[in-house]
Amino acid sequence: MYRSHTCGELRLSHINQEVTLAGWVQRVRNMGGMTFIDLRDRYGITQLSFNLEKDVELCEKARKLGREFVIQIGGIVIERESKNKQLATGEIEIEVSSFSVLNASDTPPFTIEDDTDGGEELRMRYRYLDLRRNPLKQNLQLRHKLAIETRKYMDALEFMEIETPYLIKSTPEGARDFVVPSRMHGGEFYALPQSPQTFKQILMVGGYDRYFQIVRCFRDEDLRADRQPEFTQIDCEMAFVEQEDILNTFEGLVRHLFKSVKGIELPEFVRMFYSDAMAKYGSDKPDLRFGMEFVELNDVAKNQGFQLFDDSELIIGINASGAGEFTRKQLDELTDFVKRPQIGAKGLIYCKVNEDGTFKSSVDKFFDQEKLAAWAVKCDAKPGDLILVLAGETNKTRKQMNELRLEMGNQLGLRKKGEYRPMWVLDFPLLEWDEDSQRFYAMHHPFTSPKLEQAHLLDTDPGKVNANAYDMVINGVELGGGSIRIHDQDLQSKMFSILGFSKEEAQKQFGFLLGAFKYGAPPHGGIAFGFDRLAAMFGGTDSIRDYIAFPKNNAGRDLMIDSPSTIADDQLDELSLLVNLKSE
Amino acid sequence: MYRSHTCGELRLSHINQEVTLAGWVQRVRNMGGMTFIDLRDRYGITQLSFNLEKDVELCEKARKLGREFVIQIGGIVIERESKNKQLATGEIEIEVSSFSVLNASDTPPFTIEDDTDGGEELRMRYRYLDLRRNPLKQNLQLRHKLAIETRKYMDALEFMEIETPYLIKSTPEGARDFVVPSRMHGGEFYALPQSPQTFKQILMVGGYDRYFQIVRCFRDEDLRADRQPEFTQIDCEMAFVEQEDILNTFEGLVRHLFKSVKGIELPEFVRMFYSDAMAKYGSDKPDLRFGMEFVELNDVAKNQGFQLFDDSELIIGINASGAGEFTRKQLDELTDFVKRPQIGAKGLIYCKVNEDGTFKSSVDKFFDQEKLAAWAVKCDAKPGDLILVLAGETNKTRKQMNELRLEMGNQLGLRKKGEYRPMWVLDFPLLEWDEDSQRFYAMHHPFTSPKLEQAHLLDTDPGKVNANAYDMVINGVELGGGSIRIHDQDLQSKMFSILGFSKEEAQKQFGFLLGAFKYGAPPHGGIAFGFDRLAAMFGGTDSIRDYIAFPKNNAGRDLMIDSPSTIADDQLDELSLLVNLKSE
Repeated sequence: MYRSHTCGELRLSHINQEVTLAGWVQRVRNMGGMTFIDLRDRYGITQLSFNLEKDVELCEKARKLGREFVIQIGGIVIERESKNKQLATGEIEIEVSSFSVLNASDTPPFTIEDDTDGGEELRMRYRYLDLRRNPLKQNLQLRHKLAIETRKYMDALEFMEIETPYLIKSTPEGARDFVVPSRMHGGEFYALPQSPQTFKQILMVGGYDRYFQIVRCFRDEDLRADRQPEFTQIDCEMAFVEQEDILNTFEGLVRHLFKSVKGIELPEFVRMFYSDAMAKYGSDKPDLRFGMEFVELNDVAKNQGFQLFDDSELIIGINASGAGEFTRKQLDELTDFVKRPQIGAKGLIYCKVNEDGTFKSSVDKFFDQEKLAAWAVKCDAKPGDLILVLAGETNKTRKQMNELRLEMGNQLGLRKKGEYRPMWVLDFPLLEWDEDSQRFYAMHHPFTSPKLEQAHLLDTDPGKVNANAYDMVINGVELGGGSIRIHDQDLQSKMFSILGFSKEEAQKQFGFLLGAFKYGAPPHGGIAFGFDRLAAMFGGTDSIRDYIAFPKNNAGRDLMIDSPSTIADDQLDELSLLVNLKSE
Repeated sequence: MYRSHTCGELRLSHINQEVTLAGWVQRVRNMGGMTFIDLRDRYGITQLSFNLEKDVELCEKARKLGREFVIQIGGIVIERESKNKQLATGEIEIEVSSFSVLNASDTPPFTIEDDTDGGEELRMRYRYLDLRRNPLKQNLQLRHKLAIETRKYMDALEFMEIETPYLIKSTPEGARDFVVPSRMHGGEFYALPQSPQTFKQILMVGGYDRYFQIVRCFRDEDLRADRQPEFTQIDCEMAFVEQEDILNTFEGLVRHLFKSVKGIELPEFVRMFYSDAMAKYGSDKPDLRFGMEFVELNDVAKNQGFQLFDDSELIIGINASGAGEFTRKQLDELTDFVKRPQIGAKGLIYCKVNEDGTFKSSVDKFFDQEKLAAWAVKCDAKPGDLILVLAGETNKTRKQMNELRLEMGNQLGLRKKGEYRPMWVLDFPLLEWDEDSQRFYAMHHPFTSPKLEQAHLLDTDPGKVNANAYDMVINGVELGGGSIRIHDQDLQSKMFSILGFSKEEAQKQFGFLLGAFKYGAPPHGGIAFGFDRLAAMFGGTDSIRDYIAFPKNNAGRDLMIDSPSTIADDQLDELSLLVNLKSE
């Protein structure tokens, strides 16, 4: 071992001990006859001191050290004259008696500090340097801890972690697969799993009862800022259960993680139907840290002569309580906000409730004080409050109002860090109609069970059928989702047919699952959590990339290893492939 | 929940309780007025009883149940008349008052019993049925337990589990890569990792100090019976350590696993140099459950007029103690054994030590009693022992004798199940010379550090240099291997050049690692264990396939999902690829 202690370990109780440390030079400071070096490793920072008078040679040598040199030192723990309370080791320093350079370092292209001067691309290219910074170290430590605690909880409940294959079979449903050409079977391909969905169901058919896996998944999508081509899931499945059992089990998991990792006791999980979430918050993942619920104003605002409202399917108000003091400028900015193309509202109506109980609205012309009072009653608005109104086609208006509500939550400081409001969203629709392809798609996936009491509607009005599907949402972030699965081969075949699969296609793609269902498939269901997202939520930030050791950029490229890249012609040849680039 | 208890849970203490169980029908037995059903789930088997007199309808319904039907039953726990001591639940049975069929089952194509009548291909095709059998269930349970205990041990030592990417970059060194075409970057490919080797080294450069990961690895090799295209490793790396630290840490891991999973306290780990292992056992993974060490007989057997010996570089004897009674037939069979083409010896010489102290040898003509006595002294052979001798070119003879020694160990019952003899093999050669390509290959991998005291030989006689590389071997099975790594950019560049990489090639393939080494790489080293192999050893069998939930066959094919398979033309098109099958 190159060290007797780590750089985060020494305290006053170690005074006068001879120690050996190894680590990276964080900084060198020369103060008259003294030189101080902050030595860093994964565990912390320890101050080293060199006295020019006591040992000229050693001190001069120390002064030549550059940032990020790796050194090993020997010395004695002494009490510091000026203590640093910010640092766990801040009461001591090492009076160094010898050291050696284990490895030199070029000057890093950016500073290894909590707030670095390196841009994102530079830091991704030199990921090994970026990983030395505390924030990333803490993120990966957090991720490790979450994985450990997840497994502890699942193991205690007799869930078995079972590894499912990564070289599987391409299916046309859902997102695009990454494929892997087979050398032994020329012209054939494996696919990387978008999730272990069918395998975990097969495990239930195999009698495994309680399965989980922290597992990598792959999706060849055009990437958005917060998507990665490979990502990690906590994937779970149970047999002989109903929806209620799954909700309780995984409420328990997330409760355990918050308690053990953050010391936080989560409040009760709110349960809300999908249809209510859409009506009250315009979102299937509402942030419940604050109210500001949608109020339907059709009966008090429609048919009053204001054309915009009269032409609208839905008029929604929210009460931004306490925002009655918003200035004209702030209101204009809000209007600009909702009119941005990403949101697409035509305009924003407001109504302030003045301190004297009168109203000031942007549509005073059309609505007198009495009529505005009716709005206020509906919205439970008091003096000092601000009612914001959007109107138009139902779904669009809800989506727009969702954005406005979240923005108001931000502006009024209602989305507090460190406060967590967990919920389940229940009873998602089974199917979504796609206008372009004129067919239904599974909202969750083709294995999701319809509510059996609505199953008769599958033949007559499938769009009306709800699913035994649920999402766990905390603070507006979807952490996980799942469903009770179909375990009956006839119902599964019917689902495939509603989704436009011919019998032959269904057999070709999912024959093994339909086959398995012939041999005594138990009732089962499950859930999957986005592990990267979970870690980011626990870390208190939005970017999942900061919680992945080696992420890819928005173009799916690993800048550090410079991948993807071309391969040799004989490799292609062995795989029976030709590259066929189209000219642009 | 479909059940109040599992099928493995009920005991005499539950007598008279009303319970609900769910599971699979293992068998139905009709005995006069009674019908008994064995109900099975993951946890065990519980006997259900139906009384024809008490409830004709229910009993008749039960008699119609087939094997593997999934049923839910309600009833009362009663004491059995004839108890079954073999079964954990064998003292009770359930007097069933109601049941429902949750799912029917076709008759399975093979029996779901410990000893099934299904052939391997059939069982792989219907893996979901094979997985219901106890042996597979126990194997996967064992594997889960091993993973849990591995993580427990590693976490306690402050190792962080860090996920490394699966979409990486193809490198020409080592086995063939599986590649993944990139859609976004036409003509470019990711590769699936053969191991996270470079990433774990990058993590050491990044200051992570103690890393591990239970991780999938991929190799596109022509498969042998015990190889899988995807397999799982316990992958580990440490910084600021020397070889000794790594040996101690991972001796500790394997000790912990044996203790916690099997309740076995392992004996001391023998340490043996590679050169000694080859000289004494003809193998770099000797089975130390028995002795029978090689004895070099050159000085007592060469130049005595026996041509075969006189022409040989090496003459090796082993003492098969107690095998002096072997018959002529047995000795002939041993001769046939060593002459098989896979082993390739020209013949086998024996010398029995009779009870009266005289000798009987197949080369009596050339060696008189006195000369044979000299062999016996060398081999420490006593009356009743059998000396077996092979001779020829050194390396070939050692390999042949290794096979013969293991065979004799089998025949004499010296390779006892349940006995474990762990060891480290140390100081492997750094390089292997390949005659075909007339170049050196890294015996471990290109990142392995030479013994620094021999580093000067790299320029003059690289084949003589040993590596800081080590293998953990138990009972002749290599469980894991690793090395101290190079952390100096100049030494790493030199290694690449010895391995025949041009500067440009090295830069293109491993530029990121050489780059990382410029910024303060710490001394580091690591090890990786084959997790499938480890599970198989713990389970007491040889076939890793039985410890993988969804293995592939020898042709790399998943028979259950029928993969690999062709993909759609537009998928190929999006990937800028053409399939180019050669006509055979």
